[in-house]
Amino acid sequence: MRDNYRESLESVVTDLVDLTSLVQSAVQDATQALLEADLATAEKVISADSQIDQRHDDLEARCFSLLARQAPVAGELRTIVAALRMIADLARMGDLAAHISKIARLRYPEHAVPEPLVANFTLMARVAEEMVTTAGRALSERNAHDAGKLAESDEEMDELRKSQFRVILSDDWKHSVEAAVDVALLGRYYERIADHAVIMAARVIYVITGLLPEGENWTLA
Amino acid sequence: MRDNYRESLESVVTDLVDLTSLVQSAVQDATQALLEADLATAEKVISADSQIDQRHDDLEARCFSLLARQAPVAGELRTIVAALRMIADLARMGDLAAHISKIARLRYPEHAVPEPLVANFTLMARVAEEMVTTAGRALSERNAHDAGKLAESDEEMDELRKSQFRVILSDDWKHSVEAAVDVALLGRYYERIADHAVIMAARVIYVITGLLPEGENWTLA
Repeated sequence: MRDNYRESLESVVTDLVDLTSLVQSAVQDATQALLEADLATAEKVISADSQIDQRHDDLEARCFSLLARQAPVAGELRTIVAALRMIADLARMGDLAAHISKIARLRYPEHAVPEPLVANFTLMARVAEEMVTTAGRALSERNAHDAGKLAESDEEMDELRKSQFRVILSDDWKHSVEAAVDVALLGRYYERIADHAVIMAARVIYVITGLLPEGENWTLA
Repeated sequence: MRDNYRESLESVVTDLVDLTSLVQSAVQDATQALLEADLATAEKVISADSQIDQRHDDLEARCFSLLARQAPVAGELRTIVAALRMIADLARMGDLAAHISKIARLRYPEHAVPEPLVANFTLMARVAEEMVTTAGRALSERNAHDAGKLAESDEEMDELRKSQFRVILSDDWKHSVEAAVDVALLGRYYERIADHAVIMAARVIYVITGLLPEGENWTLA
């Protein structure tokens, strides 16, 4: 009976890792939709978000059922509680990828990101995607060391965001108010995707060590 | 022993209700800081955010300990799992109140919200505060009916946000790009506070009925 229990719990973790890949693809596609003004890909991300939400609901129900079925031992309990949190974070990252795609769709056939900021967003998106991938791999391999490095990538995101503000608020800004507002919101969405990857990594560390990481680099909410 | 357990769980819920009041005050103070360009109040909200974070950490630890100490029965388990989620939502609302206050501080002694949008933000802030208050009261009174009404207030927030965009993106916009960007981000922060209040209400309904509410009005992430 406990073997069955462990198997059910393992399958939750495996499906969480799969969901992370799905979310990472959503972020990647959203970035393509945004930077290439690619309407079809934007639509794809927006409609695929309901699949991510369904997986969220399914995984959450399975965690609730595992909690209710049999008193989990310490490590199992930590895994279930952490999984519940990661499921919510992944659903949220999916929503944010959809928000990015909606801005791409709204501005189509124009590009939402003006030329002076394309390099910045390319880099920001790459860092965010890598953070999601790293969080998924750290969970899959139970690798607290890799998870621990995520808080550093988050600082890179902060720097990229600051430099976006310098560009849109400078006196040299030649583009519209609309473009500046899009940039501010898009930067916010990528920053939040990165934050959720950091929260996920913190929960991976919690599953492995029983402790949440501390220090101001660690976003926990 | 189970009586003790119930008492510990009840004290978690009582402290969650207290934390909700604290967060509601933070949102109220942030709004005052913003609309009155009140630097002292902005500083107060920003420094008080670490107290909210400490309460988050304390409550989370107590929930973990309750989960580990004794196999909770169904209703207790639902309460603990829901509490963990609400704790995270409240901490996040506190962060958002601090973000609003940081924009107020950044623009001081100017007002971050330009005159044509003061009425909109006054209303938006009032709706957000009321939503937080309602979520806390629904939890305190185990009132699924009141919790259920929160999704409707969220639609009001959406309308207010849309009207902000109409103002800042209209050809008549006489204010700076900076002011438009501030408005877009501030609107986003209030909207997210409202979303977290809706998520909290959904968890209150889950505690009472054992089911999460369904339908597109219900933000669950």
